[in-house]
Amino acid sequence: MKRNIDVCLSPELIHLYDLEGKIVVVVDILRATSVMVTAMAHGAKEIIPVATLDEAKSYLDQGYLCAAERGGAQVEGFPLDNSPFSYMNEEIKGQPIVITTTNGTLAITKSTSADQVLVGAFINIQAVADYIVRQGKDVIVHCAGWKGKTNMEDTLFAGALVELLCESHDLACDTAHLSLKYYQSVKDNLFEAVKNSAHAKRLNKLDVIKDIEFCVGQSIYDLVPVLEGDKLVAVK
Amino acid sequence: MKRNIDVCLSPELIHLYDLEGKIVVVVDILRATSVMVTAMAHGAKEIIPVATLDEAKSYLDQGYLCAAERGGAQVEGFPLDNSPFSYMNEEIKGQPIVITTTNGTLAITKSTSADQVLVGAFINIQAVADYIVRQGKDVIVHCAGWKGKTNMEDTLFAGALVELLCESHDLACDTAHLSLKYYQSVKDNLFEAVKNSAHAKRLNKLDVIKDIEFCVGQSIYDLVPVLEGDKLVAVK
Repeated sequence: MKRNIDVCLSPELIHLYDLEGKIVVVVDILRATSVMVTAMAHGAKEIIPVATLDEAKSYLDQGYLCAAERGGAQVEGFPLDNSPFSYMNEEIKGQPIVITTTNGTLAITKSTSADQVLVGAFINIQAVADYIVRQGKDVIVHCAGWKGKTNMEDTLFAGALVELLCESHDLACDTAHLSLKYYQSVKDNLFEAVKNSAHAKRLNKLDVIKDIEFCVGQSIYDLVPVLEGDKLVAVK
Repeated sequence: MKRNIDVCLSPELIHLYDLEGKIVVVVDILRATSVMVTAMAHGAKEIIPVATLDEAKSYLDQGYLCAAERGGAQVEGFPLDNSPFSYMNEEIKGQPIVITTTNGTLAITKSTSADQVLVGAFINIQAVADYIVRQGKDVIVHCAGWKGKTNMEDTLFAGALVELLCESHDLACDTAHLSLKYYQSVKDNLFEAVKNSAHAKRLNKLDVIKDIEFCVGQSIYDLVPVLEGDKLVAVK
């Protein structure tokens, strides 16, 4: 029996979806979920996503490695930023990492009534698709967006995942169709499209075009961060 | 100077947009705004959109012509339904018409902080575009969607309007780009696409495929319903 895939275009709309018994894939391509996948691929023991700076600060005071981003920029006083390249080093190996970001960690917090919460990014999209097929459950892609608004890159990820799951999952509603068609219309030049996204324009000032290029690379890592309690652990 | 066009994909997200000084185009293709345009084209004096059934009932008791729809179906006790074909007759000529629907009238109610509120549909899209160009203001397309969720047909209208306004308006944000690309990917067969929308499937049970075909016809009528106080009046 085919399962369903649906797409929620903003954390402000997630209350309209019944998550019970379903898998939710949280996506924040630029850059929270791309960072999380990269960190796990480079040996981070686990990732603790927290919604507020206060929570992150309390972990920081206990000696945890902490990343905090607001409005696209690193928050003063926190050692790690929101670039995937900052997680490709020996220092993070075996360590738990605490992360709070403008949109991505909020989307995770709002998804916890689901049966399972996964972290998706282009860089692990095939692993996410394979994991879902093995589980054989209905799926909702939860796009983190930008401060409640729908954004380009997360919607494109949703469309790419719909395309990968078309044999096992039916399109539950219009947003799955919209995401799929949108992705298919730009997929031959994803980097060009995302370079012109609203968030790329915001980040461009911060000189992170290299991050964007990395974050639209597909299936570089073969792992899926899965939420267990309040921590993300890597599943191969 | 070029103006901006932005797209709000749901009434649940409209609070994130600053409407001040802007034109808001409310769209509910299936079928509230298509009905409003049709009624005005057939001589209705004005349209009074109301959010609740109670308000509509009080107008009904005063002898007004009233249309009430909930969940796609006509509400018992109200003489007019939500099909554009019900408004193509002499009975409505010169009459004010009171309308309440699941999504469309709510979107109008939520747009009133804008400088101007217009009613858009495929059947008057060129008139809407021409009106906006004459006004020379920033525009937000407010998609009524379905019970808070984004839908296909309203997003496609948004994309079509973005395309028509590309000479006078820049794309303000990602949702304008998304709507445009989505529209362009299906525009050669809009009826086929919308026939497969979630709402078409809901309405199909109610035997209104003829309504859908009519509602995706472009620029049949050359008028724009514009909100003045709490009433919509036709502007040519």
